[in-house]
Amino acid sequence: MKILITGAGGFVGYRLAQALLKKGSLADGEGKQAPISQIVLFDVAFPENVDARLKCVKGDLTDKACVEATLGDDTDAVFHLASVVSGGAEADFDLGMRVNLDGTRGLLDACRKLPKPPRFVFTSSVAVFGGELPEVLDDGTTPNPQGSYGAQKVCCEYLVTDYSRKGYIDGRSLRLPTISVRPGKPNLAVSSFASGIIREPLNGIVSVCPVAPTAKIWLLSPGKIVDALIHAYETPSSAWGVNRVVNLPGITAVVGEMVDTLRKIAGDKIADLVEWKPDPRIEALVMSWPAKFRNDRARKLGFVADTDVESIIRGYIDDQGIKI
Amino acid sequence: MKILITGAGGFVGYRLAQALLKKGSLADGEGKQAPISQIVLFDVAFPENVDARLKCVKGDLTDKACVEATLGDDTDAVFHLASVVSGGAEADFDLGMRVNLDGTRGLLDACRKLPKPPRFVFTSSVAVFGGELPEVLDDGTTPNPQGSYGAQKVCCEYLVTDYSRKGYIDGRSLRLPTISVRPGKPNLAVSSFASGIIREPLNGIVSVCPVAPTAKIWLLSPGKIVDALIHAYETPSSAWGVNRVVNLPGITAVVGEMVDTLRKIAGDKIADLVEWKPDPRIEALVMSWPAKFRNDRARKLGFVADTDVESIIRGYIDDQGIKI
Repeated sequence: MKILITGAGGFVGYRLAQALLKKGSLADGEGKQAPISQIVLFDVAFPENVDARLKCVKGDLTDKACVEATLGDDTDAVFHLASVVSGGAEADFDLGMRVNLDGTRGLLDACRKLPKPPRFVFTSSVAVFGGELPEVLDDGTTPNPQGSYGAQKVCCEYLVTDYSRKGYIDGRSLRLPTISVRPGKPNLAVSSFASGIIREPLNGIVSVCPVAPTAKIWLLSPGKIVDALIHAYETPSSAWGVNRVVNLPGITAVVGEMVDTLRKIAGDKIADLVEWKPDPRIEALVMSWPAKFRNDRARKLGFVADTDVESIIRGYIDDQGIKI
Repeated sequence: MKILITGAGGFVGYRLAQALLKKGSLADGEGKQAPISQIVLFDVAFPENVDARLKCVKGDLTDKACVEATLGDDTDAVFHLASVVSGGAEADFDLGMRVNLDGTRGLLDACRKLPKPPRFVFTSSVAVFGGELPEVLDDGTTPNPQGSYGAQKVCCEYLVTDYSRKGYIDGRSLRLPTISVRPGKPNLAVSSFASGIIREPLNGIVSVCPVAPTAKIWLLSPGKIVDALIHAYETPSSAWGVNRVVNLPGITAVVGEMVDTLRKIAGDKIADLVEWKPDPRIEALVMSWPAKFRNDRARKLGFVADTDVESIIRGYIDDQGIKI
């Protein structure tokens, strides 16, 4: 089988590609296991030294001809991760609309032309929620995004579900919690600090935290995100029903407690590198995001969260081979 | 003030234009009353003998240059009613996407270019709801459309809310109940029968009802729809808050009881012109629509429903000058 990963130059996309290489095959949840013959990475840029077994296609998601050519007529699975992040979509409305909404729409239309409807795993976000929220959200909570990124994601969810109902694709939309700990550099995502406050200190660098220690975020580790993407693919269509969206399980992390846990694991010298400088604009947006869910549907579908913040931080330290 | 009505060649749009002409001015709900200087009707076709005080522009909603030219730089209010109806959007997916989603998007972008953000009243639909529904829906019920029309409408609602949050427009989306009684001919809307079973018999013509007498529908009369569109415009922005969507109040009508009421008003000879021929495909779609709402938000905003089916039918008879 041939797999396309969009946004595969990014951290999660590339980590997914590596996991798929290692796995070698994908089950369809209906009794069939298909060996992976080709993994195509699509993005505007790629990391150096990409594994030679992966085919990289440099292109823009909004370039329809390029997207169609990349899909060819033999793509069986699409993992659609490419996206302008929350802060970027808020700062440049047109760019966000063009990539996040039009780009996804173009990809869906290109998939529709494939001889066989592909399984299509779409990464949505808990940023679809906002406004007046219950303390604990559940599968019935109505999206009410307070940013253009969330608005674009929720529109795409409805498209993925409708294209699936029409039989054009076999789609699944995962609402991703905030990802922590991302390696590398900070990005334009408003949630970038949730990785920065762990990653930068472990690299001996000061990290400015733009929200108060009492702020809560809904977290999932990169490893569990990749597991969820693969699991979403491997779940039978029948398990999803007409509505193709699910809130992924995560854990509620209090930002101050994340730094306390870092202190416990790596010591005062490291943890003291976090500087608290609340930025009202970022804080308001983060506070509008949900921090706690009841994930009945996700658990029934077999999705799994991390155990606690400590395991997330220790996982990152292990992945990166950091010496404490 | 200059007002643009899209879909104004249709029955509701034209009736709205007539009501605005009669009204002569619009309040902004914030203490200002503005005289209406021009009403521009935009549609692909118009009825004959349009009132000379109305300016008709024949054009396609997907023609961006035409939409921009029609808005000019002096439009203060947009009533966006143009749409491919439910049955049409289901039969021709591309057409529905192009007009209902891309067309609305293009109109929103054109509005964004106006020197002053216009008030923008968008007609969504209860067809955004479907799937497993509670017996009584309320303001917290999550849209789960079972047709492409509903999916396109819900995407547009999110765009209207986000464009409003960004300050590009001052939007309001009304989820319209099924409209009955529409005059004229049946259309491609799946709900067309809800008017046909009253209208055709009163014209001495047989009407085939494609759903069982026990089917329930959520109804609002054309008069009350027009009142709601104007009321939506005249409500202050502050009353809407961040979420710009509302479920309009209506009444729960049992299809068999609608015909019984027609019988009471117009006699057996008329009512016997309804032929019951359930069409499983239409019935399934209609059954997936909601039939009962708790409309707390709408009532707080001041929207009003019809009293009962009898007043709806009698209203139609009066409007049309039908002699019983």
